[in-house]
Amino acid sequence: MSKALERRAKLREELILAAERSISAGGLAGMKTRDLAREIGCANGAVYNLVEDMDELILRVGSRTLARLDAALTNAESNGAPSPRETLVRIAVAYCDFAAANLELWRALFEHRMEPGKEVPDWAISEQMDLFRHIYRPLALLFPQRTPEQLGITARSLFSAVHGMVALGLEQKLVAVPLAALRQQIAAMVKAMVTGLVAEA
Amino acid sequence: MSKALERRAKLREELILAAERSISAGGLAGMKTRDLAREIGCANGAVYNLVEDMDELILRVGSRTLARLDAALTNAESNGAPSPRETLVRIAVAYCDFAAANLELWRALFEHRMEPGKEVPDWAISEQMDLFRHIYRPLALLFPQRTPEQLGITARSLFSAVHGMVALGLEQKLVAVPLAALRQQIAAMVKAMVTGLVAEA
Repeated sequence: MSKALERRAKLREELILAAERSISAGGLAGMKTRDLAREIGCANGAVYNLVEDMDELILRVGSRTLARLDAALTNAESNGAPSPRETLVRIAVAYCDFAAANLELWRALFEHRMEPGKEVPDWAISEQMDLFRHIYRPLALLFPQRTPEQLGITARSLFSAVHGMVALGLEQKLVAVPLAALRQQIAAMVKAMVTGLVAEA
Repeated sequence: MSKALERRAKLREELILAAERSISAGGLAGMKTRDLAREIGCANGAVYNLVEDMDELILRVGSRTLARLDAALTNAESNGAPSPRETLVRIAVAYCDFAAANLELWRALFEHRMEPGKEVPDWAISEQMDLFRHIYRPLALLFPQRTPEQLGITARSLFSAVHGMVALGLEQKLVAVPLAALRQQIAAMVKAMVTGLVAEA
């Protein structure tokens, strides 16, 4: 790699890390190109030599968040009884813990909207979809008779339900609950959902 | 009422309706005091003789949205078998339908944040909390041995789970699904949750 390319790669990495710190501290709405440029020591306009646009920058930060979430879920999977039901409960609680510990970065994953007319690029969609395997695998063990498509639907339903409990619970709005209580409620609801799904299968 | 007070009450009502149309068309982010003032034919500053601030205006619109949601849920309650399980399923599907038909107004209920340092006023909180009775009542029939506090927790969990499925499903992001499929998935998940909760009670 040429010196110029090396320098660009390094600056780009610094830019992504600066954006991550900014989102983590003040959310998506608080992030300003000007501040990021100053922090990494380049001109405002030069930021767009490093990333295509703000969408790409935010998606790159999201990619780092998803990688850490992936690690947290992998850890939760192996960290207890191997029964698929217990695994699903641990994954749900780990998702809650991750969101609470990375509140703004986790919110940014869901709040970010592409500029009008732009689609989320395939690499970002595929990173997001890949995380569903944590839910899919235990479900496939519980429901061996279901097709991959049916399992995919159940996985998304289960994720959305848990996400809703985490989102409203952490929002401190309408359904605000202390974290310890929220973890218990999520565990109870996932157990009930799985019990009910098995009973009705 | 004096002529001046009458006129103020009428203008205030017009302002709230204009805000409702604006949110309905372009979401919270698209609403501008200037446009609302022009629409009701008053000076920009005069808007703040009609409502305390933007927070109050948004909450008044929210109050109208909640009243319509309340009516939709009441209708769903009586519109089918009286069994509490079936009632819970119908309420969840009605919530989904309402959100889909009132997307921006429904989103505004959850996206609105008070200005820093300001609390949501009691009247608005109590209107929000009042809607939980639709979930609470069937749950109380299903679980007569539970305390009001326990029933309240289960009602919030159930609501958050359904809200998550609706929110991500309608978001057309990560978990986008056609409305007919989403309604089916919500019905299936609520059935499973209730079955599981009953089995574990």
